[in-house]
Amino acid sequence: MEYSKQLIEKIQEKKARVCIIGLGNVGLKLATEIAEEGYITFGIDIDEYKIKLINEGFSYINDVSELTIKKLIKSEVFKVSTSYELVKDADIIIIAVNTPLDEYKIPNFDYLRMAIEELLKYDLRGKLIILESTVYPGATEEIIGKRLSKVGYKIGEEIFIAYSPERIDPGSNIKFKEIPKIVSGLTETCAKLVEEFYKKIIKAAVYKASSTKVAEMTKLLENLFRLVNISLIYQIAILCEEANINVWEVIELAKTKPFGFLPFYPGPGAGGACIPKDPRILLWWAKKYSYLLEFIETAVKINDEMPYYIYNKILEILNKNGISAKNSRILIIGVSYKKNINDTRESAAIKVIKLLLELGVKISYHDPYVPSINIDGHQIRSIELNSENIKNNDLVAIFTDHDSINYELIFNEAKFILDTRNVFKNRHLSKIYTLGKGQNF
Amino acid sequence: MEYSKQLIEKIQEKKARVCIIGLGNVGLKLATEIAEEGYITFGIDIDEYKIKLINEGFSYINDVSELTIKKLIKSEVFKVSTSYELVKDADIIIIAVNTPLDEYKIPNFDYLRMAIEELLKYDLRGKLIILESTVYPGATEEIIGKRLSKVGYKIGEEIFIAYSPERIDPGSNIKFKEIPKIVSGLTETCAKLVEEFYKKIIKAAVYKASSTKVAEMTKLLENLFRLVNISLIYQIAILCEEANINVWEVIELAKTKPFGFLPFYPGPGAGGACIPKDPRILLWWAKKYSYLLEFIETAVKINDEMPYYIYNKILEILNKNGISAKNSRILIIGVSYKKNINDTRESAAIKVIKLLLELGVKISYHDPYVPSINIDGHQIRSIELNSENIKNNDLVAIFTDHDSINYELIFNEAKFILDTRNVFKNRHLSKIYTLGKGQNF
Repeated sequence: MEYSKQLIEKIQEKKARVCIIGLGNVGLKLATEIAEEGYITFGIDIDEYKIKLINEGFSYINDVSELTIKKLIKSEVFKVSTSYELVKDADIIIIAVNTPLDEYKIPNFDYLRMAIEELLKYDLRGKLIILESTVYPGATEEIIGKRLSKVGYKIGEEIFIAYSPERIDPGSNIKFKEIPKIVSGLTETCAKLVEEFYKKIIKAAVYKASSTKVAEMTKLLENLFRLVNISLIYQIAILCEEANINVWEVIELAKTKPFGFLPFYPGPGAGGACIPKDPRILLWWAKKYSYLLEFIETAVKINDEMPYYIYNKILEILNKNGISAKNSRILIIGVSYKKNINDTRESAAIKVIKLLLELGVKISYHDPYVPSINIDGHQIRSIELNSENIKNNDLVAIFTDHDSINYELIFNEAKFILDTRNVFKNRHLSKIYTLGKGQNF
Repeated sequence: MEYSKQLIEKIQEKKARVCIIGLGNVGLKLATEIAEEGYITFGIDIDEYKIKLINEGFSYINDVSELTIKKLIKSEVFKVSTSYELVKDADIIIIAVNTPLDEYKIPNFDYLRMAIEELLKYDLRGKLIILESTVYPGATEEIIGKRLSKVGYKIGEEIFIAYSPERIDPGSNIKFKEIPKIVSGLTETCAKLVEEFYKKIIKAAVYKASSTKVAEMTKLLENLFRLVNISLIYQIAILCEEANINVWEVIELAKTKPFGFLPFYPGPGAGGACIPKDPRILLWWAKKYSYLLEFIETAVKINDEMPYYIYNKILEILNKNGISAKNSRILIIGVSYKKNINDTRESAAIKVIKLLLELGVKISYHDPYVPSINIDGHQIRSIELNSENIKNNDLVAIFTDHDSINYELIFNEAKFILDTRNVFKNRHLSKIYTLGKGQNF
């Protein structure tokens, strides 16, 4: 009781010190948002390079400006380190480490377990631990709760454990503080504390789930919904292409229905750290109940196959125009998985580039957000987008529709174009091949 | 030219006479909405009983009030018949016939073909024919356009053919005229005419598709989106039930996400004339392109299996409480496929009742909208919902959550309850078994 009272007071008076573990897209964003609210904020990451960048005032994610980083570091509201020593002075510890898949697509929670082991080196009494990473239902209790109970901490009395799934949407216009936040705790007191904390941070509503399990499942459902609907529209796009129907027009029209419809758009395959991964966490976890999630299997499969479909489409275009793949030059536009950001994790562009390189295609790319990429040990640098660099290629393939790209130049100068994002909308030219439109095949 | 000009003028001056063929949920609703706008409106249906009911001032669908029917019939703005003779005086013919599946789940367009053959008995020059039924992409052209061309009509000059998919949502609060309407035509003139006509009828925007094929595909995508997301939540509900997670709470929480999520809810299986059918039209049509729509196959399968899941759940509840199915009495609440309407087509309740009757279960039901149902030739009448009728049963199974039902009485009097719609929300009682909640199994 004493501990929770103290913590509530510190939160109310904005005197609670917050330490974020894992400074990736989620962690760094969270840290700066909390620090900007006036809380002394610490950040820990095992990556020395990231810590160096932050300390020198650079930002490596698009949703945090360098100005913000510089300001926060200079004013000493925000302090970062590779050392867990910072935990000592923190009242609230937020874990935002990655929960990736291994090479067999099995979720791996080792980063989370390692973070807990590091934390256990310190006296954690009186502290609130909030997990933000996407995990399977039951993970907060099983991975954090049980471990801390085992070493003797009384959860809900001397230590507080919460789950609050991140809902950050990289590159989106919706502000972090305007996205409602879901909170939950292993005990009622744990839930109350995380609720009070986020009510201070978030402008939007804070919703308390009845258990951490429910909150964990909620996050999985949200991202499963996206993958299923993205995969669905991929399948419909391919069908429309074959049937000579413009799927982009179909979606625009369906969007006019005021109920029961939400538009999703075709593309070369959904990437990033969440959408292709989270449904696999659910798939893996459901095996515990011997439950076959055919829907997720189908959604995952269709999304996984999409880069191969695009690869085949490129070969078709080359062949149709009498160009052998081996002697061809292809310029890729955009290698990040989503527009206006620099994240290339699980990016369809990278997957297709690998396949094309194996065929002997000469690949170059342009991405204003990604200066270089590493394909099987070979570094490729983004080239300038100019007439010569466009004309020099047999095909320009648009994978990511960054807003700042000069599409007009591509439209005018390219020999052939594969447009996987419909950037040219209703402009027709026989040299343009658009995913989900059938007129050219 | 002459014909289209005349028609445009008649539309502008509200002097066009409109004839609706097929007076089902869509046709009767459309007819009354158009008649209420002041257009002389005719209605044709091959079902003599329906025509008799309308002429006597009765309504057989919930979205059209008897007051409206009585008023329109009395004022002679609306005239109905089983005879196609009415077509003679019509300028605009709207086809809203059913496009059902046959017993092998293959779409059957015979009602549409028959309607066209009936129309061909009259001089159709100068008339606009609008198809509203859900059909495969290309159907308006292949089934209507080609047939009329064959007998010599010049489409776009002396006859006008359009496709405008109905978007009626039975039992919903959204008004017909506030739902944006998609229109399309076999020629530019055809499209222009249907656009002008619906602009006079609809308050919401009217969107012109570039072809009838695109408009046909749009309608299929809208309903496919629904079936896929409904089936997805069924699968997640069953998983949650097994994992002891309340799926209803999960959905409420996920709903707080301001982007990328749309809530769909568990239930005993989606019924009605559209959602289970339309995706099968797409599935059938896609075979033409040798294209396997795994997603639709999965969605259709999960929805088809749902009544069997509910049936098994009922047997589990009976067994758990030591009641043999053969000696049990079950009261079904709600037999229409959706709340607050009387439509029992493809209703999950009816499917489960059939299965239970085969086991020898004594079934009774209560539905304020459906006075009687016919199961394999046996008529069952809705009984009154009172203490005795509830107590008299071993189990009360709620299939349809009509708003007017006295759930309090069921809550208090029933021995056991299966709640497939979560009508009892957060009220817990060990005798209540709720789909998608695991606490009792």
